[in-house]
Amino acid sequence: MLRAMPPDSATSPPSARARPAGAALWIAALDRGAPLPLSRQLAAALRAAIAEGQLGAGARLPSTRALAAELGLARSTVVAVFEQLAAEGYIAAQPGSGYFVPANLTEVRAVPPREATLPGMRPVSRSISRVGRLLGELNPQPRTPPRPFELGHADIDARLVATWKRLASQTLSGRSRLDWGYGDPQGEPALRQAIADYLAAARGVRCRPEQILLTSGTQQGLSLAARVLLDPGDAAWVEDPCYRAAIDILRAAEARIVPVAVDDQGLNTGGLDIGAAAQQGDMSRGGTPRLVYTTPSRQYPLGMAMPLARRMALLAWAAAAGAWIIEDDYESEFQQPARMLPSLQGLDRAGRVIYLGTFSKLVFPALRLGYAVLPEDLVRPFTAARHLADRQSSSLLQAIGGHFARHLKLMRAIYAERQAFLIAEAERRLGGWLTIRPQGCGMYVTASLPSRWSDRGVAEDLAAAGVGALPLSALILEKPRPPALVLGTAGHSEAAIARAVERMAAAFAGKPV
Amino acid sequence: MLRAMPPDSATSPPSARARPAGAALWIAALDRGAPLPLSRQLAAALRAAIAEGQLGAGARLPSTRALAAELGLARSTVVAVFEQLAAEGYIAAQPGSGYFVPANLTEVRAVPPREATLPGMRPVSRSISRVGRLLGELNPQPRTPPRPFELGHADIDARLVATWKRLASQTLSGRSRLDWGYGDPQGEPALRQAIADYLAAARGVRCRPEQILLTSGTQQGLSLAARVLLDPGDAAWVEDPCYRAAIDILRAAEARIVPVAVDDQGLNTGGLDIGAAAQQGDMSRGGTPRLVYTTPSRQYPLGMAMPLARRMALLAWAAAAGAWIIEDDYESEFQQPARMLPSLQGLDRAGRVIYLGTFSKLVFPALRLGYAVLPEDLVRPFTAARHLADRQSSSLLQAIGGHFARHLKLMRAIYAERQAFLIAEAERRLGGWLTIRPQGCGMYVTASLPSRWSDRGVAEDLAAAGVGALPLSALILEKPRPPALVLGTAGHSEAAIARAVERMAAAFAGKPV
Repeated sequence: MLRAMPPDSATSPPSARARPAGAALWIAALDRGAPLPLSRQLAAALRAAIAEGQLGAGARLPSTRALAAELGLARSTVVAVFEQLAAEGYIAAQPGSGYFVPANLTEVRAVPPREATLPGMRPVSRSISRVGRLLGELNPQPRTPPRPFELGHADIDARLVATWKRLASQTLSGRSRLDWGYGDPQGEPALRQAIADYLAAARGVRCRPEQILLTSGTQQGLSLAARVLLDPGDAAWVEDPCYRAAIDILRAAEARIVPVAVDDQGLNTGGLDIGAAAQQGDMSRGGTPRLVYTTPSRQYPLGMAMPLARRMALLAWAAAAGAWIIEDDYESEFQQPARMLPSLQGLDRAGRVIYLGTFSKLVFPALRLGYAVLPEDLVRPFTAARHLADRQSSSLLQAIGGHFARHLKLMRAIYAERQAFLIAEAERRLGGWLTIRPQGCGMYVTASLPSRWSDRGVAEDLAAAGVGALPLSALILEKPRPPALVLGTAGHSEAAIARAVERMAAAFAGKPV
Repeated sequence: MLRAMPPDSATSPPSARARPAGAALWIAALDRGAPLPLSRQLAAALRAAIAEGQLGAGARLPSTRALAAELGLARSTVVAVFEQLAAEGYIAAQPGSGYFVPANLTEVRAVPPREATLPGMRPVSRSISRVGRLLGELNPQPRTPPRPFELGHADIDARLVATWKRLASQTLSGRSRLDWGYGDPQGEPALRQAIADYLAAARGVRCRPEQILLTSGTQQGLSLAARVLLDPGDAAWVEDPCYRAAIDILRAAEARIVPVAVDDQGLNTGGLDIGAAAQQGDMSRGGTPRLVYTTPSRQYPLGMAMPLARRMALLAWAAAAGAWIIEDDYESEFQQPARMLPSLQGLDRAGRVIYLGTFSKLVFPALRLGYAVLPEDLVRPFTAARHLADRQSSSLLQAIGGHFARHLKLMRAIYAERQAFLIAEAERRLGGWLTIRPQGCGMYVTASLPSRWSDRGVAEDLAAAGVGALPLSALILEKPRPPALVLGTAGHSEAAIARAVERMAAAFAGKPV
């Protein structure tokens, strides 16, 4: 550390007297064992002493001869340092009396720090934006060692690590062309083509590669949508219960969040009478929303799929009402393709759907790669929003992700194994307490608890036992539901799952059902 | 492609009559050579025909027997497909008369597409947010093959490629621990510690690792600052001339941009009388700004450094006025450390400075990694803003970037070589036309043109000759300056630079000076 004195040192008050300052003020900083040359150490120590006020306005520096002797340096070294500092404006030469600290530096330094006021001035604010204040109330989850069954972790199977290394080394080999600079703001064209092909075959998405914007994941896709589509005060409909980060993003966009109940077919469009809706300004609570956020393939966290008729009704309503639909198609990769309904995007004829997908679940979260499929007229503002937010996705990650995505079958098999393992273990050890309906393969399950238990209370008990479980009620905005736990399975090994089930059995034993 | 008919086909209008639809409508889609089983092809073709209205409401499907015969499939295959589609809600069974398309699907489909209105309803808007409209006017630079002397390219030296591959394979090897999941929202603690140590030694930055937020680069750092600090209509001061992306980001935050003239000491604080400023609500054009964006180490694009006295004045003014300072310390890694003034952040005692740095220049742009050093009370809102925007930086990139940053000396040497090469070539071949003052090492130079030339005109001529040059006047907001070109050097090989200089000589020859 290039610091003359510890910042909290109180040894010596700043000297404003015009006598040479003692080298003791900064000599502590010189370290002959350090790799940094002594001349640079001396210069840094002097700068710090002046900037911090230990050498105040008008303070005279010792002569180069005296300082050289005191520090055991060549005099020429000290002269060079003084000349350097003079060139920088830290000190000035006074013919015949050596160097001193010029007055203008300390004059401006005289302004008192933090929250200071000068006579007659308004109080100095540390004011930030409205959005900044909203954001300050959020608390991004602190990093903790992963516990089963927390979501968002990735315990990478050894088979995948081997695949990853092979693909990464292919990507980095001389054979593959890699763009080391800033690439296409929308993402590499070849990757966008591959995504369009995959989505057409697997999800019935109909788009040209030009409608795809590479993102760093679903979270960025939704953030961009909020920025491009929502003005402060606009209504945004969300499913109840809902993914928490989606709520946070919409809140940070100053949207009015309107919860829409979920029934066994997902987002309930029962109240959406197209004709009536379109004629009234305020067809439902909160007025016509600017956008609707929905998870039709697998409602998060309840797991049901939205049937075709309801998809059609939702699209027709959106077309009539002029609302945008954000389709978060998370985890659709892990469902049985033959059993999947086509995406809303593929059924939409009015260009109202923004389709969001991610590689985080397909590969692993650290990859930070996802995509948005956009109506033609939204491509330009979304791309500009992405570009200003953080330019574009790393071309390295794009190259690696594109290769890795071919290994979908392996991922699907691993996730299915882990989920099946939890279901079997829970049946064996937690029967009567925990009921897990198979909900198609994926990265989590939602497990019912006895109806008189509190899922928040259970989650607290489990946390104390080293088991992470998300209580369903934490995701509910309005309409109460029977107690349940959302348990992430994909990111935890079978051994970890087995241990956690044992701990759950111990925690539940003796609890009145 | 799983599509019954080309979308623009006009062969047959949607049938609403209750007679069996001919298989000819979708038979085109079955491809015996395709890897997809015929049963899935048939299901997809049927879904598409129904969703697109080729099989309309009430349409009867052919019998399974007839269809199987027509398509050359086993009848059981067709039965299974029909049962699947019935389960999905696409078709319904009518006892005794086979399958048909239910009415509720086509009823909701009856809403006309795009821009449609129902009787009495307001016109359907495709309205987006105010910010979205601003963004739609921007045009992220299209991707073109790199031309010298465009900025933002990276022609990676063979020495660096070798280093990169070695480090990447170390990172991916079993020996290194890597977080495959979502990591720390602020960035990996070890990398933040390393950045804090580096910045303390090299830039006089004084911070704890807890004040560092990993970003995807300076652009994201500035975007987050705009989001957290600026309300619409707030004044933001920028240097004139200024980095264009900074202007775009501040505009997209709906800031009022106030250009501040630059003199030979950088941002001109001459008008900032602290006492007077603090007493008046409106001490200068545009009122007290909420923030000031500045490049004190090396003004972009003019290249001068801000001397110490002016740094102190700027900080004292900001402390009194309650303004935030965004210090973009780009390229400081490539200057001679002994000749660098400490950062504004290191001199600031009032916690007003947000210090932005990046690995894009230190390593290569594709890495997408940078950092912001924040006053303590801004850490939480900035981290939340980053988290909602795109969670965090890829831990893969963090691991690789952290290793690679050790190779600063090599990067510095390569960039210095390329810049020196251009200066020598320009002197030899372009003397009298182009004057490049050495401005310390970096990734670009700003070269003066004869005073009567138009730099925009020259840049157009050069573009026609395959040479990319940014005219200084494109970066000017208000105060005109003598013509000059901003030439990126770091991203182009010496061979490319030499060729470009020859082309410039040809383009300039005969032009009256």
